[in-house]
This record gives sequence, structure tokens and C-alpha cells, in this order.
Amino acid sequence: MSILQLDELVSKLVSGNMPALSKAITLVESHLPKHQEQAVQLIKQCLPYAGKSIRIGITGVPGVGKSTFIEAFGNLATQQGKKVAVLAVDPSSSINRGSILGDKTRMETLVQNANVYIRPSASGDHLGGVAKKTRESIVLCEAAGFEVILIETVGVGQSETAVHSMVDFFLLLQLAGAGDELQGIKRGIMEMCDAIIINKADGENVKWAQIAKQNYENALHLYTEKNNNWQPKVLTCSAIENTGITDIWNMIQDYVSITKSNLSFDDKRNNQEEYWLYETLNQALKDQFYQNEYVQKELKIQLDRMRQKKTTPYEVASLLFSKMLDSQK
Amino acid sequence: MSILQLDELVSKLVSGNMPALSKAITLVESHLPKHQEQAVQLIKQCLPYAGKSIRIGITGVPGVGKSTFIEAFGNLATQQGKKVAVLAVDPSSSINRGSILGDKTRMETLVQNANVYIRPSASGDHLGGVAKKTRESIVLCEAAGFEVILIETVGVGQSETAVHSMVDFFLLLQLAGAGDELQGIKRGIMEMCDAIIINKADGENVKWAQIAKQNYENALHLYTEKNNNWQPKVLTCSAIENTGITDIWNMIQDYVSITKSNLSFDDKRNNQEEYWLYETLNQALKDQFYQNEYVQKELKIQLDRMRQKKTTPYEVASLLFSKMLDSQK
Repeated sequence: MSILQLDELVSKLVSGNMPALSKAITLVESHLPKHQEQAVQLIKQCLPYAGKSIRIGITGVPGVGKSTFIEAFGNLATQQGKKVAVLAVDPSSSINRGSILGDKTRMETLVQNANVYIRPSASGDHLGGVAKKTRESIVLCEAAGFEVILIETVGVGQSETAVHSMVDFFLLLQLAGAGDELQGIKRGIMEMCDAIIINKADGENVKWAQIAKQNYENALHLYTEKNNNWQPKVLTCSAIENTGITDIWNMIQDYVSITKSNLSFDDKRNNQEEYWLYETLNQALKDQFYQNEYVQKELKIQLDRMRQKKTTPYEVASLLFSKMLDSQK
Repeated sequence: MSILQLDELVSKLVSGNMPALSKAITLVESHLPKHQEQAVQLIKQCLPYAGKSIRIGITGVPGVGKSTFIEAFGNLATQQGKKVAVLAVDPSSSINRGSILGDKTRMETLVQNANVYIRPSASGDHLGGVAKKTRESIVLCEAAGFEVILIETVGVGQSETAVHSMVDFFLLLQLAGAGDELQGIKRGIMEMCDAIIINKADGENVKWAQIAKQNYENALHLYTEKNNNWQPKVLTCSAIENTGITDIWNMIQDYVSITKSNLSFDDKRNNQEEYWLYETLNQALKDQFYQNEYVQKELKIQLDRMRQKKTTPYEVASLLFSKMLDSQK
């Protein structure tokens, strides 16, 4: 792609052209060095147009109804006059398994909504790589005029921390169960979320959802208040019957207005940028070290010696580090 | 110290000589390069004699009664025929403020107990340094025949993670309060502990302690079981009236016999050794990078540009990292 073509792509993208947005995201996702260089330029040109959305992370275990929720919430947002983009972090998330891949039973109406852009996650990459691409896709979507960005992740593994560190508001979807409502959710996710939504609060399930709501509220009170004046909320909804969705929308509007007025909204975004800078740097440092052939060989030998109580972690660290420095001379 | 003197120190230490143990710990704590070299040798010679204790971490906010608890628990352990060592991680812990520094109102009887060794933490060092010294002191205490090692830390800051990663059993001391019992405890500590002890369960306070016990038990049930077949317990005690201490002692014995029979006891220790190896290595990598003069100067400039939305974390990381590599050539 020439500089001229890149400029044209940017100009189409910022005018809201969806094929241009798709092309731009494909460029960002490409592993070709040439494409990666162009992607850096592309992102830089889009940055001045970006940042004006509300970025919402959505997590929950498979079966909790994430795609149905995203469909209901996304359609409501467009009714409020917003353009909505839906991204995913993990290849196993519902938007990758569902309608996007041809099975039209999920997000059926959302796919047909002219003000909605849906993009599955790039697969075949490590989490750091996917996170980078998702964060860059957010910038591109924002530059293309999308005002609500929904980022889906499944409630397992480490991807929640990644998503939490790229969104303004983090939603945990749960189900009312008999008893152990909190089982199956990774430790720490409760602490990250800005709200818990109990989905499938319909029919017979309404009373269980209310009990679950109470339980979650008690559990959330165990955590001290966050430093942005926001006490995490618990709401119920039925995505499939489209009830309770407006309350969730209003809650997020409240969150935005509170955190914008006390400046914690922008603080959080700045902190997130720094977080990703240090994450990227620290990962690069580790990769360079642990991929060193000498280090790999010696580490194996020393781990064995350590297990045999012949050496300490500190002696091994000092040995490996000084040898690595020598090898660079 | 000559090699001969070092050998003599080790031989005295492993025979249980307390002045030799103190001298050895002082060597480990020294910042002099010559001493540090000797300390490496010392630790290596002690390693074959080490590892046979039960290492117990004790945390809780100031005022919860940690020193009174340690006094009661330590005395009980000696009555059971055990030799007890007490170490601290943070300079602000009670054993550094209390009896050790002359004020004999704390740990009065423990200080006089011939089977107890108490050592305040080395101060004036960063957490990684203190953690290293504490872990090495554990090895020395074990080599000197101490069978119960108590490691105290205050319930604030990052030192709990450090202590949690060097002990077999982690105790959180709490008080029964009216209402917000869990306030003031850092997020994540509840998840780390193997037991919560509600102290000062005496007089009028007994009924509040029982309510608190129930609350904590409910809270602990929110967390999924750990992979060592141990479900964290909640017990009450009054360290000052010396009630409930035997139950705590018995609980820890149960823990040891369960985790030793399912092999998770040794697994945990091996994992801890690896944790400290990688912690030490990763910290060394970061120190080397961020202390680089070029990196420091450029990082400041680029953080500003990032805040002005002129660049992305990934562009900055790539720039800093490649320049750093160039500067090493």
C-alpha cells in the first residue's frame, strides 16, 4: 500500500466507511512486517479521531448468554442513536462461534443493524498479541465514529485482566443458580468488575435471580470502594425477553457522567496506556532473555539442581543473569 | 572470614548455637560484596540441613494483636517440644517495634523462652531484598534445628504476597467489628490465606467473634477450593487469655499431614523456589533496562507524547527496546 493509498484508507475510515474499517483492522492483524509498519502509520493518523467512545468489557462463562445480551444491549444503544462496534478477545468467544461464522442463530438482528460493526478476534496468537490488536481495533473503530465499543471475553483464563485494562466499564454476566452462584468464576474477576448482571431473570427464574442479586451485593460489599467513587452494582436482566436492558444502559451512563466529572475517566485511560507500555516492554525484556539459547539450556540444569536442594533461586538468578550479560559483550 | 571460620560457623550453627545463627543472619543481611559472597557459601552449606520446619506466615493490620498471638502460639509450640523461630518481613512489624527494641511489654515471655529465637527484619531495603534475606534466614533457622518458623508481616502493602510465597501455611488475623469486618484488608489477602483467626474473642466480644466467624466462613466459600484439598478455615481465639490457641495448633498439624500425604506440601515449596527464581530474574532484567540512562530520558519524553495522543504504547515500547539493544552493541 502506498502512502497515497494509506491516506485514502484513513480518510474513508474517518468518514465511517465500514469496508475501510475492516481493511484497516486486517492490516493491524497482519503478521507481515510491511503491513505492521503501515499499521503503525495508520494508527497514528487515526489517533486524533479516536478516544470518544465508551468502551465496555463483557465477560462471563459460556452459556451465560453473552451473545444474546450483546444483541439486546447493542440494539438498544443504536436506538439511543449510537453507532456500536463489537469486538472479541478470545477465539472461543461467542461472536466467533456464532453468527459471524455463518450460524445465524446468534446476534441475528445485530448483524443486520446498519449502525453495528461486528469483528471476531484474530486467532492463532498469544494473549499479548491479541490484546494489542484489539486495542488498536478500538482506536480504528472510534476513528470510524463508533461511540459504543463492546469487547467480549469468556470468563476463563487471563484474558479478563487484558480486557479490564482496555475498557472504561467492565461487566460480569452471571446466572442465578441454586447455591454456589460464584463457582466457576476466576478469583479476582469479581474485584475487577464495575457491575454484575444476572442474566436469564425470566419466568420461574426471577425469584432466584433476586436471591442471587442479594448474594452478589453482599459479596461486593466485601471489597473496599474503588478510587473513582463508583460502588459496583448488581442488576438483573433477561436478554432474551429484552427486560432490564435499559437499566443497564442508564447505569453505564451514570458511571460515565460520575467518572468524567471527577476526572477518573481520563485518569483510568491514561493509566491503561501506561499499563500496556510497561506490559509490552517487560514482555519484550523477558522474551529476549528466556529465548536466549544459553539461558534455556542452563535454566533447565539449574532448576534440577534447585529441586535437589543444591542451590538457591538467588544463586541461579545471579549466575544466569551475569552469563547472559557476558554473552552480549 | 576465612573458609575455616566459615566452616566453623556452619558447624556451630547446625549444632543449634544461637549466637552462631545470629552471626550467620547478620552475614546474609550485609550489603558488603565480600559478605555476600560468603553468605552464598554459607547458605549452600546449610541447605542440606534445611527444609524440615513448618513455615507459618502471620498477617493482620496493626492493633489486631499479632505479637500477643505470636507469644501465645510460640509458647504453645515449645510446650509441644518444638524449637520456634520468629522472623519479620516489614520494618514496621510488631517484633521490631516491641520487645526486641527494648520495650518488654510485647512478647515478654517468648523473649525469655530458651527454645525461641526472635529476629527483627533487616530494614532500609526494598521488598525484594528483604524477602531474599528472610528466605535465607529461614534456611539458616532450619539448619539450626528450628522446627516452627513464624514469619510476621503487617496487613498492608505488597509484603503479604512475598510472605505467602515463602510459607507453608498463611494465617490472617482479624478482629470482630460491628459491621465491616473486612474493611482495611487488602484485596486478595483473603484469597491467599489458609486460615482466618479472629483474635480477641474474649468477654463481651465472644458473641461478635462468632458472628464474624460466620461472615468470614461465608466469604471464604466464595472462593473455589485450592488444589491441595484444603478448604480455608475460620477459628476464633483470645491470645491474651490464651484460649483457642491449641485448636489453631491442631489445625496446622492437620494441614501438614493432609498436604504431605497428597504431596502438595513439597509441590508448594518447589513452586515457591521457582517463583523466587523468576521474580529475581525478572526484577534484574527490569532494573537493568529502566536504570539505563537513555531509557529513562526517552521514557519521560514518550510518556508525555502518549498522554497527548501522539503515539501508542506499542510504538513507544518498540522504540525504547530497539534503541536499548543498539546501545548495548
